[in-house]
Amino acid sequence: MTKLNYSLDEIEAILPHILRRQNIAHYNDGKVYIGNRSLYPFEKSFVECACVEDVAVAIETMVTQGVGPWVAAVHALAMLADLRKNSANIIGELEQAKTRLIQTRPTNTLISYRLEDVLSHAKIAVKDGRDPSQAILLRIDDILDEMYSLYARRAGYGAEIVEYGDGILTMCFAETSFILTCAFAKAQGKNICVYVPETRPFLQGAKLTAPSLDEIGIEVKLITDGMPSALMAEGKIQKYMTAADLITLDGHVVNKVGTFQNAICAAHHNIPYYAFAWGCDPSKSDRASIEIEYRAPSEIRQCMGRYTSLDRINALYPAFDITPPELVAGIITRNGVLSPHDLKDGFEQ
Amino acid sequence: MTKLNYSLDEIEAILPHILRRQNIAHYNDGKVYIGNRSLYPFEKSFVECACVEDVAVAIETMVTQGVGPWVAAVHALAMLADLRKNSANIIGELEQAKTRLIQTRPTNTLISYRLEDVLSHAKIAVKDGRDPSQAILLRIDDILDEMYSLYARRAGYGAEIVEYGDGILTMCFAETSFILTCAFAKAQGKNICVYVPETRPFLQGAKLTAPSLDEIGIEVKLITDGMPSALMAEGKIQKYMTAADLITLDGHVVNKVGTFQNAICAAHHNIPYYAFAWGCDPSKSDRASIEIEYRAPSEIRQCMGRYTSLDRINALYPAFDITPPELVAGIITRNGVLSPHDLKDGFEQ
Repeated sequence: MTKLNYSLDEIEAILPHILRRQNIAHYNDGKVYIGNRSLYPFEKSFVECACVEDVAVAIETMVTQGVGPWVAAVHALAMLADLRKNSANIIGELEQAKTRLIQTRPTNTLISYRLEDVLSHAKIAVKDGRDPSQAILLRIDDILDEMYSLYARRAGYGAEIVEYGDGILTMCFAETSFILTCAFAKAQGKNICVYVPETRPFLQGAKLTAPSLDEIGIEVKLITDGMPSALMAEGKIQKYMTAADLITLDGHVVNKVGTFQNAICAAHHNIPYYAFAWGCDPSKSDRASIEIEYRAPSEIRQCMGRYTSLDRINALYPAFDITPPELVAGIITRNGVLSPHDLKDGFEQ
Repeated sequence: MTKLNYSLDEIEAILPHILRRQNIAHYNDGKVYIGNRSLYPFEKSFVECACVEDVAVAIETMVTQGVGPWVAAVHALAMLADLRKNSANIIGELEQAKTRLIQTRPTNTLISYRLEDVLSHAKIAVKDGRDPSQAILLRIDDILDEMYSLYARRAGYGAEIVEYGDGILTMCFAETSFILTCAFAKAQGKNICVYVPETRPFLQGAKLTAPSLDEIGIEVKLITDGMPSALMAEGKIQKYMTAADLITLDGHVVNKVGTFQNAICAAHHNIPYYAFAWGCDPSKSDRASIEIEYRAPSEIRQCMGRYTSLDRINALYPAFDITPPELVAGIITRNGVLSPHDLKDGFEQ
């Protein structure tokens, strides 16, 4: 019998260390603890934050990534609300903290959206004479409950696509939807092997994806970013699955640079490519609405803090690339697997 | 007026540090000096070898690569012939040294071929009462003269392909034929920019290609191995040019892993791919005659000597990949640019 529904507790128990909600960030006894992804997988540790400024600096120095920045930021508000619960101006202090926390990553609009959300619950609690810190923590739990439920729904659809014996290529760190897809497929008795490109320059594949899959008992092969098509030619890969930083309404997938060339090579070898959605931004209608962020060239001339070339050599770092819909077999959403040509009226509602 | 013919001295003067014949390996006053490519570009230094065993160990520890191993090995024989010129058993000693030097890289058949070649000249010299060391050094000079002349001929054809304003993608370190192609194109007034993938895991692009091109005044952009197709989509790349470790008679190009996926992506963007030949092995008739070497997985889990993932994570390291003829626009040989479908009767004669 194949198990199709998982409780939130079961999901938490399936997930590898780095993706468990406690290990992203949590509040305990006056302090926020942020899981330190910059040392992972070599160390599993937390950055201890005793004030809002500590949390802001931790976010700014890239201690966490993915959903981590907003999860850390809302816990900073819960901490402040607890430590300052007797202040006459508690809402003013929370507003000031919100402003500081938004500054940490001005382009990550989810931080400000989530801070506004939990702050509104704190305001109602204060008006009703309830504990604002408790109100924020309850609201965070509700948001995370919904988020993990949606991860599990997408992963259920993802696992249906996976077949027995599949070699699956991924790219970068496709986070909980993909890790759960692999876990569910394994629980369904599907023996799989995941090929993980290291994902230069920051090595999210080597540092996050490969150890996470290995931790939950999935067979993993780490490769460099130049190897996917060599393995496709050998018949080792049957599916290609990645996250998506953004999916446009006309079906373009924006993701970590390297995703696009794997998609071209997959199409060349008749291997289907699936991307996991995590929400829909209706303002991103087509390719023209996307601006690719170019990061500092110095990041290309280094690996793990060591120089790989001379400082005087020019470099280019487009952080993302764009895969057009004709190379995408399906978008895995909370409502099932959609054609990239069938997103025009929105998706993930 | 475009200059089409270059003397060997002019070529030597055009080349960057690492490719000049003196800097590959040379013999002087009882010692062999091997250019230390493992420290390049951070240091331009030589490994000093006072005996055959020193040279053998240097070759084994990857001090040099490309043509370096055989150039170093034949200079070791010249050194021994000089130091032991009064020995009654000099030919026996040279034969023994040859055996030791072949052991350094048993799969590199060129080492044994070149050692046999220079040794035959030493034997004749001894018989004729001439200095065997001088005979070996003169023979090395002749071989290198021919090699650099052929590089220049191929580069002449390569430069004809290059057009004004081209963005050229390469891969790994395509050595003298490609570096001279860029130099000749520049001398012809063709303004070019070369996009250089770093080429993990050993970073030959970052450490050898980018600094070499920069040294001779060619515009360079260093990128990671995941970026070529993102730049193709932006219209930055007009040609793709690489070396070839081997080209089969039916037009398959064997080269550093990653070459194949760039070729697929180039074809997807209508960008022609050219590979430089360096000789023809008639025993390699087709794809089936090629066996891809798999190297140690541990090399994938490291960069510049630092761990990038956990030691327990499995990895795969196919050292080369195979690009089929339908993705190859032309093979640049000493006799001009040939179609990959037109090599059956041999090439590079």
